[in-house]
Amino acid sequence: MPNFFSSLKNAYQLFRHVDFQKLEQLSKKVDLPKVVESFSNMDQTQLSGLMKMMGSSHKKKELPPIEGDFYHLGEEALKDEDRALQLKVRAFLEKEVKPVVNQYWLKAEFPFELIPKIAELNICGLTYKGYGCPGRSNLMEGMLAMEMARVDTSISTFFGVQSGLAMGSIYLLGSEEQKQEWLPGMQQFKIIGAFGLTEPEVGSAAAGGLTTTAKRVGNKWILNGQKKWIGNATFSDVTIIWARDLEDSQVKGFLVRKGNKGMHVEKMQDKMALRIVQNGLITLTNCEVEEQDRLQHADSFKDTAKVLRMTRAGVAWQAVGCARGAYESALNYTRTRKQFGKPIASFQLIQNHLVEMLSNLTAMQTLCFRLSQLQDQGLLTDEHASLAKVFCSMRTRDVVSRAREVMGGNGILLEYDVARFVADAEAIYSYEGTKEINSLIVGRAITGFSAFV
Amino acid sequence: MPNFFSSLKNAYQLFRHVDFQKLEQLSKKVDLPKVVESFSNMDQTQLSGLMKMMGSSHKKKELPPIEGDFYHLGEEALKDEDRALQLKVRAFLEKEVKPVVNQYWLKAEFPFELIPKIAELNICGLTYKGYGCPGRSNLMEGMLAMEMARVDTSISTFFGVQSGLAMGSIYLLGSEEQKQEWLPGMQQFKIIGAFGLTEPEVGSAAAGGLTTTAKRVGNKWILNGQKKWIGNATFSDVTIIWARDLEDSQVKGFLVRKGNKGMHVEKMQDKMALRIVQNGLITLTNCEVEEQDRLQHADSFKDTAKVLRMTRAGVAWQAVGCARGAYESALNYTRTRKQFGKPIASFQLIQNHLVEMLSNLTAMQTLCFRLSQLQDQGLLTDEHASLAKVFCSMRTRDVVSRAREVMGGNGILLEYDVARFVADAEAIYSYEGTKEINSLIVGRAITGFSAFV
Amino acid sequence: MPNFFSSLKNAYQLFRHVDFQKLEQLSKKVDLPKVVESFSNMDQTQLSGLMKMMGSSHKKKELPPIEGDFYHLGEEALKDEDRALQLKVRAFLEKEVKPVVNQYWLKAEFPFELIPKIAELNICGLTYKGYGCPGRSNLMEGMLAMEMARVDTSISTFFGVQSGLAMGSIYLLGSEEQKQEWLPGMQQFKIIGAFGLTEPEVGSAAAGGLTTTAKRVGNKWILNGQKKWIGNATFSDVTIIWARDLEDSQVKGFLVRKGNKGMHVEKMQDKMALRIVQNGLITLTNCEVEEQDRLQHADSFKDTAKVLRMTRAGVAWQAVGCARGAYESALNYTRTRKQFGKPIASFQLIQNHLVEMLSNLTAMQTLCFRLSQLQDQGLLTDEHASLAKVFCSMRTRDVVSRAREVMGGNGILLEYDVARFVADAEAIYSYEGTKEINSLIVGRAITGFSAFV
Amino acid sequence: MPNFFSSLKNAYQLFRHVDFQKLEQLSKKVDLPKVVESFSNMDQTQLSGLMKMMGSSHKKKELPPIEGDFYHLGEEALKDEDRALQLKVRAFLEKEVKPVVNQYWLKAEFPFELIPKIAELNICGLTYKGYGCPGRSNLMEGMLAMEMARVDTSISTFFGVQSGLAMGSIYLLGSEEQKQEWLPGMQQFKIIGAFGLTEPEVGSAAAGGLTTTAKRVGNKWILNGQKKWIGNATFSDVTIIWARDLEDSQVKGFLVRKGNKGMHVEKMQDKMALRIVQNGLITLTNCEVEEQDRLQHADSFKDTAKVLRMTRAGVAWQAVGCARGAYESALNYTRTRKQFGKPIASFQLIQNHLVEMLSNLTAMQTLCFRLSQLQDQGLLTDEHASLAKVFCSMRTRDVVSRAREVMGGNGILLEYDVARFVADAEAIYSYEGTKEINSLIVGRAITGFSAFV
Repeated sequence: MPNFFSSLKNAYQLFRHVDFQKLEQLSKKVDLPKVVESFSNMDQTQLSGLMKMMGSSHKKKELPPIEGDFYHLGEEALKDEDRALQLKVRAFLEKEVKPVVNQYWLKAEFPFELIPKIAELNICGLTYKGYGCPGRSNLMEGMLAMEMARVDTSISTFFGVQSGLAMGSIYLLGSEEQKQEWLPGMQQFKIIGAFGLTEPEVGSAAAGGLTTTAKRVGNKWILNGQKKWIGNATFSDVTIIWARDLEDSQVKGFLVRKGNKGMHVEKMQDKMALRIVQNGLITLTNCEVEEQDRLQHADSFKDTAKVLRMTRAGVAWQAVGCARGAYESALNYTRTRKQFGKPIASFQLIQNHLVEMLSNLTAMQTLCFRLSQLQDQGLLTDEHASLAKVFCSMRTRDVVSRAREVMGGNGILLEYDVARFVADAEAIYSYEGTKEINSLIVGRAITGFSAFV
Repeated sequence: MPNFFSSLKNAYQLFRHVDFQKLEQLSKKVDLPKVVESFSNMDQTQLSGLMKMMGSSHKKKELPPIEGDFYHLGEEALKDEDRALQLKVRAFLEKEVKPVVNQYWLKAEFPFELIPKIAELNICGLTYKGYGCPGRSNLMEGMLAMEMARVDTSISTFFGVQSGLAMGSIYLLGSEEQKQEWLPGMQQFKIIGAFGLTEPEVGSAAAGGLTTTAKRVGNKWILNGQKKWIGNATFSDVTIIWARDLEDSQVKGFLVRKGNKGMHVEKMQDKMALRIVQNGLITLTNCEVEEQDRLQHADSFKDTAKVLRMTRAGVAWQAVGCARGAYESALNYTRTRKQFGKPIASFQLIQNHLVEMLSNLTAMQTLCFRLSQLQDQGLLTDEHASLAKVFCSMRTRDVVSRAREVMGGNGILLEYDVARFVADAEAIYSYEGTKEINSLIVGRAITGFSAFV
Repeated sequence: MPNFFSSLKNAYQLFRHVDFQKLEQLSKKVDLPKVVESFSNMDQTQLSGLMKMMGSSHKKKELPPIEGDFYHLGEEALKDEDRALQLKVRAFLEKEVKPVVNQYWLKAEFPFELIPKIAELNICGLTYKGYGCPGRSNLMEGMLAMEMARVDTSISTFFGVQSGLAMGSIYLLGSEEQKQEWLPGMQQFKIIGAFGLTEPEVGSAAAGGLTTTAKRVGNKWILNGQKKWIGNATFSDVTIIWARDLEDSQVKGFLVRKGNKGMHVEKMQDKMALRIVQNGLITLTNCEVEEQDRLQHADSFKDTAKVLRMTRAGVAWQAVGCARGAYESALNYTRTRKQFGKPIASFQLIQNHLVEMLSNLTAMQTLCFRLSQLQDQGLLTDEHASLAKVFCSMRTRDVVSRAREVMGGNGILLEYDVARFVADAEAIYSYEGTKEINSLIVGRAITGFSAFV
Repeated sequence: MPNFFSSLKNAYQLFRHVDFQKLEQLSKKVDLPKVVESFSNMDQTQLSGLMKMMGSSHKKKELPPIEGDFYHLGEEALKDEDRALQLKVRAFLEKEVKPVVNQYWLKAEFPFELIPKIAELNICGLTYKGYGCPGRSNLMEGMLAMEMARVDTSISTFFGVQSGLAMGSIYLLGSEEQKQEWLPGMQQFKIIGAFGLTEPEVGSAAAGGLTTTAKRVGNKWILNGQKKWIGNATFSDVTIIWARDLEDSQVKGFLVRKGNKGMHVEKMQDKMALRIVQNGLITLTNCEVEEQDRLQHADSFKDTAKVLRMTRAGVAWQAVGCARGAYESALNYTRTRKQFGKPIASFQLIQNHLVEMLSNLTAMQTLCFRLSQLQDQGLLTDEHASLAKVFCSMRTRDVVSRAREVMGGNGILLEYDVARFVADAEAIYSYEGTKEINSLIVGRAITGFSAFV
């Protein structure tokens, strides 16, 4: 009996701070003797670890989630006005684009009602000077490409075609008259542009192999051939067609206006990626264009390449945005989705995925940041941009793939906001030069040997 | 002058076997002096290499393409009648399924008209004995799962739900009366089955955590809860619902017949993978089932697990089929698509992708082959099947990804028969146990430690 | 007060099965109120999980570790006498080779005292018929190559040079007299052979580019040139030198005997892999060989290639062995090494590594198993063997890398039996044809296009 | 006959610019009719490609190789004096360290004669202010860590132990007297320091689990326990020992002087990585230390962690250096090594490896650049540093592995300057926190959940 009382006293000592009611509830759910047995087999370090875990998970739970800018490139590195613009664009995308984008993607249609709102942001032709354009830095433009792709890569692509490829061709290679005619309206999205380079048998970066022809007859040019994958072309007001002059074999650019009877545009069907982007298959049959609608300073493919170099950095940033959007969705999902009674973000295997995603994302961000700095410093070369395209499109594939994976089955439902990124990453991977072509561009630069054929 | 004649004589010597007309044509296209200059700078080995290349590519061009069974597992390892069945099923899929499948996938609809034709193949319930079933080997069944998924993973999944999960539950866990009632009709696809295990908050392999409840009242059971992702459920005649008996907390199985008023099935929308598979979100509200429709030999989750173990090998084989279909499409594409004037299959970077695909594909095939042998020998364990699921779903992801990559932009168009595999591989990756869950099943077996929580 | 007694009664009810002494010990180590608080916040599923974990880890702890033959290829698939031989060879390696091998590796010396013991196993020239050779299957030979490399890849390489390359050249391409003279002694390791193909500027699989020359003068041949990387050459009794006949430009083979004054052999220094293998740099300066020591049936490089095809399967098996050795060491290490008070094998991140290793290992095993079957069926082609070499050397790199990783810092100490495999895997990766060369061999076979240059 | 003359005229037209002698030489080496036949089968694009290839490879061959700073971080981003210091350190390493380092590595010995020369560079304690230290930026320090590791990771580690861990502990946690006593001499390498944290059973980043004890007795402390892996410890003048105070259970630091009889140091043998680094196994047996040699401001493990946070960025930079050294060696090798008569750098498969290496290298550089900026801005957190450690040590493994691969067999010979990097990368991968531990540090920060146990 004294034994029993001493036991009671021990019990009192042991449990005076324990919430007895909770313990009683608990005893219905777990096998207490077994728990004690198990715990007794642990050593001090293990028990400390366990206590620390309970403590730290409690303490940390209140922390706000750290978003996908782990190294504070936006907050710290941008000037105030740039940071403000970045946040304004982000807010617009979250509010106006995100809620509608999955349904448009599914239907493979374009949300035309968004165009005037995008125009209001006044970010089109961001880096150009004059013609109503803001004249901001390439770094800023890159960051905004990331912001757009973070919510939807299709919208970002639509924007890139208009602001970069189409306006850029005119800005870099047009005459003063041509710039005056087109750029102000395009900057405000009153005029929509497209960029017709790729052909059914000639990929987007295949220099010089174009088969579309241009033949000069008097003051006119006659264009013949086909263009494939031309973004925005189904509804564009002006489409820049790149064709080989039959006379001097050089590639020249032509501003083909909507309604030109020699140009037939068919919408490409059945894509599994970037389904919002309206890609046209363009057939040119004796398509007549006035000499004054030829880009006056585009004399050879080298000039076309200038446009591509300028925009390729943007594609790298788009990849970053795509990865960031997927990562952030996955992070939020895993912090709330439970398995075995715990948020899945508390499992090692899930954390491992998240950290791999974040490290790739952060590396891409710092890489593109430097790329845009090089561009702003006038040091950008083709191979710099190609390297970023290769690295970012590869790493993005890895990020979106893990984002989908941590979501299990739900990852294949569009509503969870990762499936779309998984599909779209495949398009980014291949457009504006496949991984292979861009690798060989870098490879030639570093080795001094061309290995294309 | 003598010099000139000796030159002429030399020319004659040099060119007497050359086709002069061809040379003349050629001289218009290439800069001959430069070619001679370049060739002269090569040494003997290089020139031999060049000659060998020209020779071998000529010689090899006639060879028939080697299909995706590089180690002759089908041809060599199957008995004659099995090989014949394999080829019959393949022919059916090529002829009847392949031409329609992309459009159904795009519309997210099921090709009901194919069901009677699939029935005619007489391969449903392939390994079961009696009840109209053929009683063939597990190896044969695995090979056929590969054949089906090679053309379409959705069709293969539809088949697997019917033949494996639904019929398998009844075959393994039903009473003799239940088997007599259901199996013959199901074997002929006159009755369609579904398998209701997964729940909105409980993934497909999460043992024991089921929240759907069953309460016995007299001779009836009252089911309440939700099931998600249930394949075929939108049109099934009978759906096996797994629920936890409120009395003894054990998981039991119930045959719920079409039209039961307590069961509401909603078609899941907006999937980016396996879009042909009709997944149901099932809500059970006081759903009444007769005791005689309870699976009579399903006493706990361990019995459910028997069904899953039997079918998991099939999922591994499906992954193989998905990879094989993508590889074969990619191989054919690269042998005909040209860049820089040559089939892209003649470039090192493309061959590297093809060989990586083929090596993974072949490894998967030999692994699954052995897995099915273990099954036929009665040696199969959960961890064997889980290992195959993990390996094959990971490697398949890699294969389909490369298949898409070598197709460039065309890889995102459904018509090129790879985009669909890319998307579907994501579903395979996560269903019947995610990579993480299956890894932890194997991990527990090899280390002796459970690491699920 | 009644409250206090009811609490005591509750306490008694709660704890009557608990070991009170253990609990008291425990209360000194953990913060009991906090534990109760934490546990109370868990729901039923989480608690079940926790209980299950404790239970299962207890139960499973007693299980014997499953060794690196997860799919029972050895146990099940080998005939009894083959299985016995496999186990005999394994026992020899564990007992005689394993204890000494790290020190020899470190000193870059060869354990000559092991040679008579290896001879006693009577496994040299395993597949050959006659000349004292056992005439067993290629599958058996492959399994033994795995067993040897599982303990040490250098020893396995030494054996492969003797049994495969050197004896194989004579067996396949020698005259009857030559076979009689050499094979019986070599089978018993009384005569050691080497195989001199690779040259300083010509890699191991570079067909036909050999620069070593042979010139016939009367009944003799004069050899000139250099050979690099020639395994066993520093102590071989006979070295087969492959050289190009200056007359007909064909590659021929010569048996150069130890002591020939025209042959100088220098030991290659400073390797970071396969340090036990003694590689010779051979310089041939007007080295005279009798016509009767020319391999009588080696007429061109095609004949040399026959030897390489036969042995390449063995290299794939060696890779499997290397991976298996590393995996098994890692598995054992992680089951005993503790962190945070638990064996590290009980952490998800470590299990993930182990399962990745095991799945790759098992895939390699089933692939090579089939490869050897093809060889035994007479169906083996170069591309079959090359595919296996590519797959296995790549996957092995991944396996050994993870094996080292799970060992943390200890993984770089030789005593833990993984560091050596990490280094040796690099040699396997590149010898008998790099990944690139073997990929292009397969690539040519499947595409019909040669892409070597 | 007229036909013949017209042919001759054609021949003249065709070949008037061709160097006939070269053509004649060529005709002996290649089968001209076949070449013409082959070329005739090509189309215009293919021929253009071929011509372009010949042109571009000619033109590009003269280009200087682009070194491993593809995005000009050193040239453009450093201030002049920093750039000058970077180049001075690089020159020293190239001239004094590179020529001797392979032999020391092989012998596992330390090049003591280099110490005074390193001292002369005046870069030790680079970021500290006062005590003879230069007070430069963390960015500069990171760049120099990269420069050192680019030539040898062991030397870089030796330096990091002295400048970062040992001096850093005193600088951050010592009293003013302690700083005065030690730092000036250490800055000039007159006093060598070591940092004793890791224990046989407790890895480098395992907070708080230390088992080495300290017991205060009067004005002395008695230390007992073991330390493993302690760099420089075999010859250090002062070793900082971290031990748990038996009284308050907090971790404290002690400056143990050379010759202390209670401290026994044994050199660790048989490492396969960082063989130049002399790691000590320290046994403390009633080791007495004066209270005045206790680090006066080290009150708990949190203080130790401050030192680790400061130095972890340096480890990330070391990984970058290791990758850069391997890449540059591989680039140079592939530009000169020939196969099939061409530099191997001109093959697609090799270029692909080089570009993968360079893209990873460049991403690491930009990531670490930003990391050091965060450090200089006072924003660095543990998780920032851990992310960089994880990313860089993983990517470095990939880079060195490819560097070795492109070298084929020669890649395993130390003389080609890549094998050492391959081995050393494994040490970097695991020291100062394994990938797993650092991932869980980041994981806790981003998810709010601790998953260590």
